[in-house]
Amino acid sequence: MQPAPGIDLNADLGEGFGPWPMGDDAAMLDLVTSANVAGGFHAGDPAGIARTLAAAAARGVSVGAHPGYRDLVGFGRRFVAATAEELRADVVYQVGAVQALARAAGLDVGYIKAHGELYHQLSSNPTHSAAFLAAATDVGLPVLALAGSAFAQWAAEAGVPVYAEAFGDRAYAPDGSLVPRGEPGALRHDAQQVIDGVLQLAETGTVTAIDGSVIPVRADSICLHGDTPGAVEFARSVRAALQDAGIPLRPFV
Amino acid sequence: MQPAPGIDLNADLGEGFGPWPMGDDAAMLDLVTSANVAGGFHAGDPAGIARTLAAAAARGVSVGAHPGYRDLVGFGRRFVAATAEELRADVVYQVGAVQALARAAGLDVGYIKAHGELYHQLSSNPTHSAAFLAAATDVGLPVLALAGSAFAQWAAEAGVPVYAEAFGDRAYAPDGSLVPRGEPGALRHDAQQVIDGVLQLAETGTVTAIDGSVIPVRADSICLHGDTPGAVEFARSVRAALQDAGIPLRPFV
Amino acid sequence: MQPAPGIDLNADLGEGFGPWPMGDDAAMLDLVTSANVAGGFHAGDPAGIARTLAAAAARGVSVGAHPGYRDLVGFGRRFVAATAEELRADVVYQVGAVQALARAAGLDVGYIKAHGELYHQLSSNPTHSAAFLAAATDVGLPVLALAGSAFAQWAAEAGVPVYAEAFGDRAYAPDGSLVPRGEPGALRHDAQQVIDGVLQLAETGTVTAIDGSVIPVRADSICLHGDTPGAVEFARSVRAALQDAGIPLRPFV
Amino acid sequence: MQPAPGIDLNADLGEGFGPWPMGDDAAMLDLVTSANVAGGFHAGDPAGIARTLAAAAARGVSVGAHPGYRDLVGFGRRFVAATAEELRADVVYQVGAVQALARAAGLDVGYIKAHGELYHQLSSNPTHSAAFLAAATDVGLPVLALAGSAFAQWAAEAGVPVYAEAFGDRAYAPDGSLVPRGEPGALRHDAQQVIDGVLQLAETGTVTAIDGSVIPVRADSICLHGDTPGAVEFARSVRAALQDAGIPLRPFV
Repeated sequence: MQPAPGIDLNADLGEGFGPWPMGDDAAMLDLVTSANVAGGFHAGDPAGIARTLAAAAARGVSVGAHPGYRDLVGFGRRFVAATAEELRADVVYQVGAVQALARAAGLDVGYIKAHGELYHQLSSNPTHSAAFLAAATDVGLPVLALAGSAFAQWAAEAGVPVYAEAFGDRAYAPDGSLVPRGEPGALRHDAQQVIDGVLQLAETGTVTAIDGSVIPVRADSICLHGDTPGAVEFARSVRAALQDAGIPLRPFV
Repeated sequence: MQPAPGIDLNADLGEGFGPWPMGDDAAMLDLVTSANVAGGFHAGDPAGIARTLAAAAARGVSVGAHPGYRDLVGFGRRFVAATAEELRADVVYQVGAVQALARAAGLDVGYIKAHGELYHQLSSNPTHSAAFLAAATDVGLPVLALAGSAFAQWAAEAGVPVYAEAFGDRAYAPDGSLVPRGEPGALRHDAQQVIDGVLQLAETGTVTAIDGSVIPVRADSICLHGDTPGAVEFARSVRAALQDAGIPLRPFV
Repeated sequence: MQPAPGIDLNADLGEGFGPWPMGDDAAMLDLVTSANVAGGFHAGDPAGIARTLAAAAARGVSVGAHPGYRDLVGFGRRFVAATAEELRADVVYQVGAVQALARAAGLDVGYIKAHGELYHQLSSNPTHSAAFLAAATDVGLPVLALAGSAFAQWAAEAGVPVYAEAFGDRAYAPDGSLVPRGEPGALRHDAQQVIDGVLQLAETGTVTAIDGSVIPVRADSICLHGDTPGAVEFARSVRAALQDAGIPLRPFV
Repeated sequence: MQPAPGIDLNADLGEGFGPWPMGDDAAMLDLVTSANVAGGFHAGDPAGIARTLAAAAARGVSVGAHPGYRDLVGFGRRFVAATAEELRADVVYQVGAVQALARAAGLDVGYIKAHGELYHQLSSNPTHSAAFLAAATDVGLPVLALAGSAFAQWAAEAGVPVYAEAFGDRAYAPDGSLVPRGEPGALRHDAQQVIDGVLQLAETGTVTAIDGSVIPVRADSICLHGDTPGAVEFARSVRAALQDAGIPLRPFV
């Protein structure tokens, strides 16, 4: 797929559970063009998911399903050694649940993006990656994958439509992969640096890697984090910078 | 809706969880024409649900979604004082999950039947009944309701398509309601008496109430229990009796 | 038991779950003399419970176990129709879990206080009340009960040691019961009025009921809420007022 | 510790959940001398745990706590990448819960044995092993470990009292480790061969390894499986063989 001009901003939303909120969904929905809505296994109770979907519908924000490992207490940030059969069914289950709640809100789910540790495993664990792609095929939806990742390539090889997301707040290695968290310089903390990175991605389809080289990175969407301190304010800055630069903001699906 | 000639046999299936089976799904699927498949909150893990759906597809059995209260340890047999918003979303969530797994197995979910205590509350708790009907409207599916129940009437009043199920192993009061469990004679234990009751329902649309009066009871489907000792053998007897009587067995949707 | 001079301040703590915090436990632990620590069924993951207990130990705060209905998504605020056998075992299970984590932190659990809807049911549901008292007997701990409640009386009749808690932010009826939430004037919103009520309870063992009459209310402890906006600041005001009035703050067990 | 004369037979029990049983606890409790009772995270609801403990008390069977990963749907057979802090607290929580239910039944929990994948990880995952041993220290209980395992050694090094269990139905390598499942000959299927192995363990403290060599294996307890077809009948044969050989059956703690 050839990305249309402009860029999408996505964030993980609907990630409260029962009495416990996570971030400020309403504020983030005013800023993003795509919302990855939790599927209930790592976060998201049905009523909360429904509220987030209604708020997305009210703002014309596109929605994706955001399934994770069955690990509520660990927020899906812990590896769970599910079998391929289990993981495939877990993903279809969560996506179907979000789809039905979305339809009730007048929306169609447009894509799937994995959450947390599952997102990471998709590029390193062929069994879980294949199970996830089988689930995507089951539900007939494209996937949103880390730009340049093994998973993006495996998805394409499997014939699953794939869109690429990039990060403004992460450093890239010269080969286009993310510098792993924990390594020096992996996270960009300077707001202007992040915004410059987002603009570069949106305008030129490139990033300046950690060694200074400029490399191509396809970005159909930029991932914004909604659950960190100052997240909303920062997302607002990114959005404003893109608008000031005349870059259209639009969903990728 | 005017029921077509013949009768449907339904049973609750997919009600294991993880390592724990419940009944013998494969054997029951050889006998029923409709399977009420658990939605995950009172029973049913996604991989197990998927296996039950695949087995139903292989046999041409129709499937409905079978949501319950969020009460795994209590098997949905305990009342949970959910708000209307919570219950509506819980039902949509579970139905959507089963729908997606069914589509992956090449099936369409044809109806919704509530489980356990939720099934009972639907005729006595107007808030939960309205929430359930709102969920049915959200997902655009008919409901399978107890014949002659308040819920069946409320569903019709709400414009939700409704099918009626009756029980061969329960005694009826002269007003067409079930004799409550715990009252003398509420449960029919004699196999031949149950089979005679099923035949009477299917052939004449009547039951002989506990006082001997014969009353009309609409039965689009007969509910068979799959999780009691001897359940499979008994279901086989009921099916054989219907076939011997020349009554077609066919799904109601 | 004759209460010692002085008063206890208690709050519900350890009520986060996994990634989701609830209130500011550290700040509240600087203000209360007793912490009701969640038992895991309505809130509280083991690692979070352990952190709260360690913080309590560091401040010399007494701890009680705070079990609730098995209703994580509803935060134990929904009635769950557990059997007596289930509820008794659920309470013993949760209390034992908190006891072991407390001992690991160098603390002994001193009492049990029910959470949320279970707290309310204890005075209206004799089955659940008896099951809870059987559990208290099983673990050999006193209960913290609403002053003047049916449960406080039933506990005494059952031979379970019982302490009484009162509320500064709730209006009382002339018979010593709380004015039900939802009725006019049930909640006191004026900070000074609440503080005055707390001082009156601590100094004279009385409250001024909603009709102006002054009635005796035994208060071994005053309940502070930790999860509302401004909770910490308000708790600080209450504590300061008690200290200014020369009323000793000390645990009731 | 020098094992006393005689041998212990242990089995994992209390591993149903809500409506779903697992194996036949009552029958197994007539045969074993120690029961490893599930802690609720991989299996075991409080009421079911309590019933198993009461049945153990009625028969004078010793009990241990049997905690597992927080993985109900996977029965704790899946690795969960818990942090050390999480796992330590999870184990203390589960053990404390079983301890309180045991005391209510008039029993003291005598030891801890890990379940499923956690049992395996204890010998290969130093982080999880250290967390488990810290939890054992927290609750002041000895551990039951695989004879000859890395975990048994690590426990001894950490100063945690450790007892050794061996398997009659598993083949041993010449170094005293178990032949991994999946390798040829790993499982002994011949009943007489298993019984002979158990007798050899109990009488001589040795096993005949897969290469025919005879090696020492300390066995304070023999593990019987309760959840496989024919488990009860087979356990009965093992017990009878030991009794026929005049080997006393007695708990190891």
